[in-house]
Amino acid sequence: MTVRLDLSQDAASLTAQLVDIPSVSGGERVLADAVEEALRAHPHLTVHRDGDSVVARTDLGRSERILIAGHLDTVPIADNLPSRIEGPLMYGCGTSDMKSGVAVQLRLAAHLVEPNRDVTYVFYDCEEIEASRNGLLRLANTRPEWLVADFAVLMEPTGGAVEGGCQGTLRVRITTLGTRAHSARSWLGDNAIHAAAPILTRLQGYEAARVVIDGLEYREGLSAVGIEGGVAGNVIPDACTVTVNFRFAPNRSVEQAFEHVREVFAGFDVVLTDAAAGALPGLDRPAAAAFVAAIGTPPRAKFGWTDVARFSAMGIPAVNYGPGDPNLAHKRDEHVEIALIGDSEERLLHWLR
Amino acid sequence: MTVRLDLSQDAASLTAQLVDIPSVSGGERVLADAVEEALRAHPHLTVHRDGDSVVARTDLGRSERILIAGHLDTVPIADNLPSRIEGPLMYGCGTSDMKSGVAVQLRLAAHLVEPNRDVTYVFYDCEEIEASRNGLLRLANTRPEWLVADFAVLMEPTGGAVEGGCQGTLRVRITTLGTRAHSARSWLGDNAIHAAAPILTRLQGYEAARVVIDGLEYREGLSAVGIEGGVAGNVIPDACTVTVNFRFAPNRSVEQAFEHVREVFAGFDVVLTDAAAGALPGLDRPAAAAFVAAIGTPPRAKFGWTDVARFSAMGIPAVNYGPGDPNLAHKRDEHVEIALIGDSEERLLHWLR
Repeated sequence: MTVRLDLSQDAASLTAQLVDIPSVSGGERVLADAVEEALRAHPHLTVHRDGDSVVARTDLGRSERILIAGHLDTVPIADNLPSRIEGPLMYGCGTSDMKSGVAVQLRLAAHLVEPNRDVTYVFYDCEEIEASRNGLLRLANTRPEWLVADFAVLMEPTGGAVEGGCQGTLRVRITTLGTRAHSARSWLGDNAIHAAAPILTRLQGYEAARVVIDGLEYREGLSAVGIEGGVAGNVIPDACTVTVNFRFAPNRSVEQAFEHVREVFAGFDVVLTDAAAGALPGLDRPAAAAFVAAIGTPPRAKFGWTDVARFSAMGIPAVNYGPGDPNLAHKRDEHVEIALIGDSEERLLHWLR
Repeated sequence: MTVRLDLSQDAASLTAQLVDIPSVSGGERVLADAVEEALRAHPHLTVHRDGDSVVARTDLGRSERILIAGHLDTVPIADNLPSRIEGPLMYGCGTSDMKSGVAVQLRLAAHLVEPNRDVTYVFYDCEEIEASRNGLLRLANTRPEWLVADFAVLMEPTGGAVEGGCQGTLRVRITTLGTRAHSARSWLGDNAIHAAAPILTRLQGYEAARVVIDGLEYREGLSAVGIEGGVAGNVIPDACTVTVNFRFAPNRSVEQAFEHVREVFAGFDVVLTDAAAGALPGLDRPAAAAFVAAIGTPPRAKFGWTDVARFSAMGIPAVNYGPGDPNLAHKRDEHVEIALIGDSEERLLHWLR
């Protein structure tokens, strides 16, 4: 199947066209083909293709290069296609996360023939599934030269606000051990669940830090996300495991964050199970400062982890900025405020002209 | 299949014959038939049959009636049949729990033609499985007149010691509730696992009582036997449940024991899930005092719950006393010290002659 995208229509209409091309993770081929073909029609762009990711760049020799990225895939469709408009809102899978952002990217790519900064537009696959299949990670590993930039904007849904950087995340398993015994003779055993009491007490009393970076306040959190223990209803349990998630401000590295968690749970066996570094907002960079000025609303910190951290890992400061509503992503009634789509396009044009 | 029991052989040989008739719970028919037939051969006994339980009674008009009970069933066979003798030990499924006790019962029933107290011998089915199928419970509900007695001896394995009464047991579920949120914005939620901290702290600090009744020291225990909570690795959990088992001395009723647990966990939602009353040792009864004197070793408290509690519920004080080794019950290498079988028989004969 071949679909031809019309980049001359307004960004909202283009959003509807994009939404109506299903592209659940792993099934982005038709949409990626359409994006590639539409961009190749514009001679001011150099277009690359890798799997179902498409990269288009201007090469005007500007002193700064910025990168605008969005993913082509969506979560599974939940009886919410095709798109439909109800008053000021457009409903449908991907309207918010993030084909409205992709529509703005495509409009900018087609119409900004001579931007004031060189621009790299990245459209990638498989953001909504396991990290190992993430298209941006693949490009970073195999085509890092395509992604070189001074500053990046990821058009994930932020409701039109600038959300700087992102917090890091790590998970640990804290296990207490004991000795089994029949519960009728509990004194012959050593209860591992009871031994977990200080772990929960320390979590309950933990004062999470608030950290200001580049004027943005990050807010950390240390939370039990799981606990399990017990053998049978008449057995003193010999093991109890608490799973703890630490969301940390981007001024801590993963190593520093893990060290902090180990200090909080000093005396216990703390095992790191997974971690992802945060991303600094980088709002002190000239391109970023100009971006914030162009958007015109005060930036705020991004708490959730997003692919901006992949840019940060490449040394590229990055922010989230997109017309979608982050609270509706992945929901059946996913929708976008139509006016915000054109508004985002206007503000980005203002920045890059 | 019909098997003929020889009650003239010594109790150890009879134990071996009983062990070699498989009688896993629910499959006691052949053994129950053999027991019934062997007892019916003795005109000093009145024999009743109910399902796979057999009850035999003397009716001499004595001023006291005592009851001696044992179950015919075993846990599943674990490659440990037929029985075999190694030096002073007899190995095999049921040697300890509790066909050695049943052998002593059968010998007493056959040979004590004129005991000094009337005796009711109870052989019952389905002790090792769910309580609803327990033969003694069935008799208590449908044939209570068969079980009337002043004192009962349950020949469960005690290694030849008298273990008085038994502790009660109850289980509660204590649940904390919270509010889900994404763990990247933990302050928007309310963590139910953190809220369980005081539950574990109270358990860790709980001082279990030691209670002396009729000279026996009971030892209580309040133990977490399970804990669970958690939704996903990035979600603040909205529920956490701790399952607590309270083993309580037989001077507390179930109601009093539950009230105590509710006091310990005041402020939390405590739900009773199951309970079984304890049993007072009743060593102040004349028949019991004479029994203890005849056995000749100091009695001790029984911590685990046993069917003596069913006698207690009928107003009959009861003790555990049997030749088997309680630490080997339900194990593959289950065995009994052969000398203790005849020794138990001698001591009971001494009591009842």
